[in-house]
Amino acid sequence: MSTWTLAYESFEPEEESLREALTSTGNGYFCTRGASEWAEAGDIHYPGTYMHGGFNRATTIMAGRPIVNEDLVNMPNWLVLKLRIEGEEPIALNNVDLLSYHHEYDIRNALLSRTIRFRDRQERETTLVSRRFVCMATPHDAAIEWTITAENWSGHVEILSGLDGRVTNSGVARYRQLESRHLVPVRTQTVAPDIISLVVHTRQSHIYVAEAARTRVYGENEPLAVDRFTQEFDGYIHQAVSFHVTEKQPVRVEKIVAFYSSRDNAISEPMVNAQQAVARAPTFEVALERHKGAWDDLWAVSDIVIPKDENVQRLIRFHISQVLQVCSPVTADLDAGVPARGLNGEAYRGHIFWDELYIYPFLNFRFPDITRELLMYRYRRLGMARALAKAEGHKGAMFPWQSGSDGTEETQVVHLNPKSGKWDPDFSHNQRHVNAAIFYNIWQYYMTTNDIDFMWDFGAEMLLCIARFWSSITHFNEDRQRYEIHGIMGPDEFHEALHGSDDHGVPNNAYTNLMVAWISEIALEVMDLVPQRRMQALRRKVGLKDEDIAKWKDMSGKMFAPFHDDGILSQFEGYEGLEEMDWEGYRAKYGNIQRLDRILKAEGDTPDRFKLAKQADTLMLWFLFDEEVLAELFKRLGYEYRADTRKRNIDYYERRTSHGSTLSYIVHADVESGVDPKLSWDRFKVALESDVNDIQGGTTKEGIHMGVMAGTLDLIQRGFLGTEIHGDFVSFDPKPIDELDGLSLTMLFRRTPFQVTRNGDELTVSVQLGGRADRLRVRVGGEEKELSAGESYTFRF
Amino acid sequence: MSTWTLAYESFEPEEESLREALTSTGNGYFCTRGASEWAEAGDIHYPGTYMHGGFNRATTIMAGRPIVNEDLVNMPNWLVLKLRIEGEEPIALNNVDLLSYHHEYDIRNALLSRTIRFRDRQERETTLVSRRFVCMATPHDAAIEWTITAENWSGHVEILSGLDGRVTNSGVARYRQLESRHLVPVRTQTVAPDIISLVVHTRQSHIYVAEAARTRVYGENEPLAVDRFTQEFDGYIHQAVSFHVTEKQPVRVEKIVAFYSSRDNAISEPMVNAQQAVARAPTFEVALERHKGAWDDLWAVSDIVIPKDENVQRLIRFHISQVLQVCSPVTADLDAGVPARGLNGEAYRGHIFWDELYIYPFLNFRFPDITRELLMYRYRRLGMARALAKAEGHKGAMFPWQSGSDGTEETQVVHLNPKSGKWDPDFSHNQRHVNAAIFYNIWQYYMTTNDIDFMWDFGAEMLLCIARFWSSITHFNEDRQRYEIHGIMGPDEFHEALHGSDDHGVPNNAYTNLMVAWISEIALEVMDLVPQRRMQALRRKVGLKDEDIAKWKDMSGKMFAPFHDDGILSQFEGYEGLEEMDWEGYRAKYGNIQRLDRILKAEGDTPDRFKLAKQADTLMLWFLFDEEVLAELFKRLGYEYRADTRKRNIDYYERRTSHGSTLSYIVHADVESGVDPKLSWDRFKVALESDVNDIQGGTTKEGIHMGVMAGTLDLIQRGFLGTEIHGDFVSFDPKPIDELDGLSLTMLFRRTPFQVTRNGDELTVSVQLGGRADRLRVRVGGEEKELSAGESYTFRF
Repeated sequence: MSTWTLAYESFEPEEESLREALTSTGNGYFCTRGASEWAEAGDIHYPGTYMHGGFNRATTIMAGRPIVNEDLVNMPNWLVLKLRIEGEEPIALNNVDLLSYHHEYDIRNALLSRTIRFRDRQERETTLVSRRFVCMATPHDAAIEWTITAENWSGHVEILSGLDGRVTNSGVARYRQLESRHLVPVRTQTVAPDIISLVVHTRQSHIYVAEAARTRVYGENEPLAVDRFTQEFDGYIHQAVSFHVTEKQPVRVEKIVAFYSSRDNAISEPMVNAQQAVARAPTFEVALERHKGAWDDLWAVSDIVIPKDENVQRLIRFHISQVLQVCSPVTADLDAGVPARGLNGEAYRGHIFWDELYIYPFLNFRFPDITRELLMYRYRRLGMARALAKAEGHKGAMFPWQSGSDGTEETQVVHLNPKSGKWDPDFSHNQRHVNAAIFYNIWQYYMTTNDIDFMWDFGAEMLLCIARFWSSITHFNEDRQRYEIHGIMGPDEFHEALHGSDDHGVPNNAYTNLMVAWISEIALEVMDLVPQRRMQALRRKVGLKDEDIAKWKDMSGKMFAPFHDDGILSQFEGYEGLEEMDWEGYRAKYGNIQRLDRILKAEGDTPDRFKLAKQADTLMLWFLFDEEVLAELFKRLGYEYRADTRKRNIDYYERRTSHGSTLSYIVHADVESGVDPKLSWDRFKVALESDVNDIQGGTTKEGIHMGVMAGTLDLIQRGFLGTEIHGDFVSFDPKPIDELDGLSLTMLFRRTPFQVTRNGDELTVSVQLGGRADRLRVRVGGEEKELSAGESYTFRF
Repeated sequence: MSTWTLAYESFEPEEESLREALTSTGNGYFCTRGASEWAEAGDIHYPGTYMHGGFNRATTIMAGRPIVNEDLVNMPNWLVLKLRIEGEEPIALNNVDLLSYHHEYDIRNALLSRTIRFRDRQERETTLVSRRFVCMATPHDAAIEWTITAENWSGHVEILSGLDGRVTNSGVARYRQLESRHLVPVRTQTVAPDIISLVVHTRQSHIYVAEAARTRVYGENEPLAVDRFTQEFDGYIHQAVSFHVTEKQPVRVEKIVAFYSSRDNAISEPMVNAQQAVARAPTFEVALERHKGAWDDLWAVSDIVIPKDENVQRLIRFHISQVLQVCSPVTADLDAGVPARGLNGEAYRGHIFWDELYIYPFLNFRFPDITRELLMYRYRRLGMARALAKAEGHKGAMFPWQSGSDGTEETQVVHLNPKSGKWDPDFSHNQRHVNAAIFYNIWQYYMTTNDIDFMWDFGAEMLLCIARFWSSITHFNEDRQRYEIHGIMGPDEFHEALHGSDDHGVPNNAYTNLMVAWISEIALEVMDLVPQRRMQALRRKVGLKDEDIAKWKDMSGKMFAPFHDDGILSQFEGYEGLEEMDWEGYRAKYGNIQRLDRILKAEGDTPDRFKLAKQADTLMLWFLFDEEVLAELFKRLGYEYRADTRKRNIDYYERRTSHGSTLSYIVHADVESGVDPKLSWDRFKVALESDVNDIQGGTTKEGIHMGVMAGTLDLIQRGFLGTEIHGDFVSFDPKPIDELDGLSLTMLFRRTPFQVTRNGDELTVSVQLGGRADRLRVRVGGEEKELSAGESYTFRF
């Protein structure tokens, strides 16, 4: 099997639904998660296509009180194709015998194929080859092709080619008691003999969505004479296309679909443009060529070659393919954020969390324009973040933990515990650290691209507003002569409070406090980056006072960090006094203890009582920063940073983490890469396979894990290749991992494209021709080089 | 009167409607053309507010067959405020005596004020001061304030504060037989005691529009106790706010309005966000301060100081203020093009013509980000332009003459001649030269900014597609061994065909043919600008063949240009044989003969028969190009360019142009500036005053002339200051116009901001600090300098 292919040869409805989740082909307009096309079997029917522009409002969960506020909305199913032979009921799983089955996802071209052979009740044997894609070149278009071969019969066939707007959001079992209908039928129409269309609008947000489909049938590339008959219901339309098939002579059905919404730019009206688009559309084959061409351009800058491990190679490419289907140049115009679960499923309803922290580094080094637009997504919601800060009594801007389409806080306030069946209160909105992540993301984008225009026009405003929020939530402890932050939650969501305390959130989360010390310093640096007159206007706009700046100066050297056990950073103040978990005991009793919180709560206990973490919290510091930056930070704060500080902290928390979020494997793989490369590689492989093997017991069907998928790509570049930015220099520090011998990838640093190839203990850097800039300053070990376009240099490491 | 103020002291309903057109304050979201706020007098009632996102489809005129396809849509009137005293009928023009009237437009802050004093039928005298603005800082917001002083009475007062969605598009008299209703009422709602809201959707395009208004009444800055009563009808809501006023004690009414549409980014749903926005809005005064701050930032880069002529100074600032209300940083996100009549009126229904050619130069040198977004507006419609070319049998991309919201051709096919009352056929869609203008605009943007990113990602694709269209419409005349273009219309719309010929359009329009020679050369240059791999992808995307490139090479040296009278460029081939007009006779008979076409057609004659032009056609060449570029072009084509070629052609066409478009004055003022500065200055002043004095007999009420307004600004910089770009250098060649002594303005060239000041025969160039780049290469006469940030140099000229 090629490393460009994921293929399966057997068919089990339950597995199939996972494969469908994984083989989605979306691009921001569509995500074809539907599985209904070859046979509309009830047991594997998925609705179809999601729309997410970040344009709708989030679904607010209130126990027992469903509210229709759309965010991620399941779009009308455009895949509907059914096959009727001789006027019998349509072929479905329950009325045929499967003779063979082959399901294949072409990673390079995001093309999904299925070959099935079945015998029906009349002993007819038929082969059906299905191919489909959502076009990366012309992002309003999608296409599906069926090739039908009557193996041992001839006769009359009818294809039902439909558009179905009666879909619901019902892909996540635990949401099913909530309102799931988001589409209101508007209109169905037969436009031309071979074109049908459907219009719906979203219930709460009144966004009109139109789909049009053109269905044609071909013999040997010649259009076949067919009869057509259209049926329309409220929210549904199909065309029955009937024709004669002859034994052993393949017939091709092409269904070309266009999709427009009233939020699209440059349209008259969604239906007009959808109809026009399919009328003008080329054949399946020509459309596919264009689609492949667009992917060729993407792979030219994004492929990562790992010759020594075929499975790693395949999954890395698979992850690239998935990430680019959710965020790509064609989505940049859409004001769409990155939903935590991509566009592949309904979990978290499309809300935007902090996953950008794991996703941007891969994009920054290849597609900085995409990151820029995603940061603009945040910028457009800065006003809402400022209103949120004000409403909570803070200054500046406080971005919410779960951001809905207009940037309001959409975190649930209760949460269903499947272990106990109870709705527990949910305090996860206290995760203010998302504001540290957004700050870090903006700065990293700037460091990678040197995009001063963005910084002046948008970035600085966000950075200063966020820094102002942090200085406002921070208070000075006179006794300690240190700044403290109380009442928030760190990345470890298991600890909702200091055990025994009545206050929500924990006091002095080490990760947050140290991030804030860093943020305060960078905020001052940002002020120097912006010219004086512009800075004056910005200060007026942001409401920045001299005392804010003074406080940042002070905070940057006086944030409090808790320690215990002689140099272990305490996850939060008071952590030291918590009890140790009986990890072995719980593993023995429960097997998978990733969601230890649910287990403990179901037992009537609380995770607050223990030294445990759902996911990396304190260790985030070593994930986000070079060791020298951290050492400098410790020094500025007057804390000792020893040679073994990193290793001791990693070892300490490694033993106390349940990895209840797969993101945790990314962080641990990264921090271990410099300490224990073997363990690091193991962690990496768990993350790499987590969605393809659905290690969390079914969550992949609810959507891929965007942060983890992109995180594995970043692990290759930042973790294992040791890519770091030092001012104008990009540096590499490859880790001793044999599996990565021969690694080769393309990167972009400050507008200069280059290739890095690792062979043995040699690292070759080649600056490519045709970049926007043509000089690269690079450092490996102690050696520094400035390379021009066309130049290569081989370092030893 | 300050040069920052336009003021009027008398009141005539007819003049008032012109002033309303001129004192509009819009910013892409709103354009407050409504005049109804102080007294809803039927005779001066204008609907209110326009929405134009380029997002709707154009209204297609078909004689007798109105079609509702919205483009520029009159938004619900948010200005509705009525005053009732002691329960009587609302104060209106027809039930009071006006005692005094003062109408003032604060140019700097786009703030409209009115002070009126009236005596009602009960002999009560009242002073009403009204101020209103649409916020440049928070572009969803607008505000109006009334200060009411009971001069000789005390008593009970009621203010009706409403939102009116029952408006129509009826601002252009000759469109009134067409469908004028574009809004469908959806919902009215009282949200909070002081907040009402209204939702409508557009009829054809299903765009939801919500407005919310918060009305508060203040005594001495203290909120006044008031009673409120809401009335709602279909598409209309108002709140009657009643309170007591005391003689001589002013009372202030503040109405803060927010406006959202379903096309806005970062919203939940228009009504939710509109209601939330007014609930959170500050007071009128605070909002006004923010608005002024945003304008301060705009003026800092856009003001043009002309100390010697107060009226010129005032009107130039007025034009800057108008241009920036239609295109500004806050409109950049909207996918909105520049309608020919701004957002001030309904003429041309918001369609996009070629006016960008006159508008961009002012923006390029100050706000290149705005031009970039306007070019992106075209880029998003490139697919439609390619489809249009294909439909007409051409290759590449053919942008339409009148571009509707999705980029389709929306030029009318019949046109009402008010002189004859007849519908004449309209061939103006043959103006393919819009494709030369767009090409020129992209290139000029690139030359001014050096924005290679735009060129690689978007610009080159458009340029190559347009060049391909031109090479496809061009055919080779074997006899002449020259390339020719037939069947198109030049900028002079009076000539629809060669007189006596049955073909539409004219053969070999000189302006077009020479532009195409230039375009062919630049297209080749563009191919060298784009790196090889990227170019390959682009060629695949655009479908560019080797033979296209070969043809460009050939065309660049072999386009045909017609001449007559020993060196006069014939406007088109065959022009030479046309008759001379009796200009004096027609002037004597008709007075204003700008629209000679309508006069001749009403006489049963045709303009095709004569040597005349509606507006500059051949002379466009000297408007768009430096003389040395033209001389080089002539040489490459094997045509002689003599020392007197420019002057002789200008003199020739100057005498044969009716200036039926005010754009013509811009072109003539520009080309004359180097030949006859006195005549040039006169032409400039006609253009400068054309809207403020409504010289075309009422057209200003149908909207301002964006091209002319921006054109006067560009005349100052490119015409009179002689600004030209030569590679990395910007050069100046000030014309001997005494009125411009002391001229000072700020420009931006390739990211370096600088100030230019003219004093006597000295020109001082000062590079400003804080630019994105900090070096400027500048040339005056033979002298070249490279200046760094903070440096000044004084040239003599």
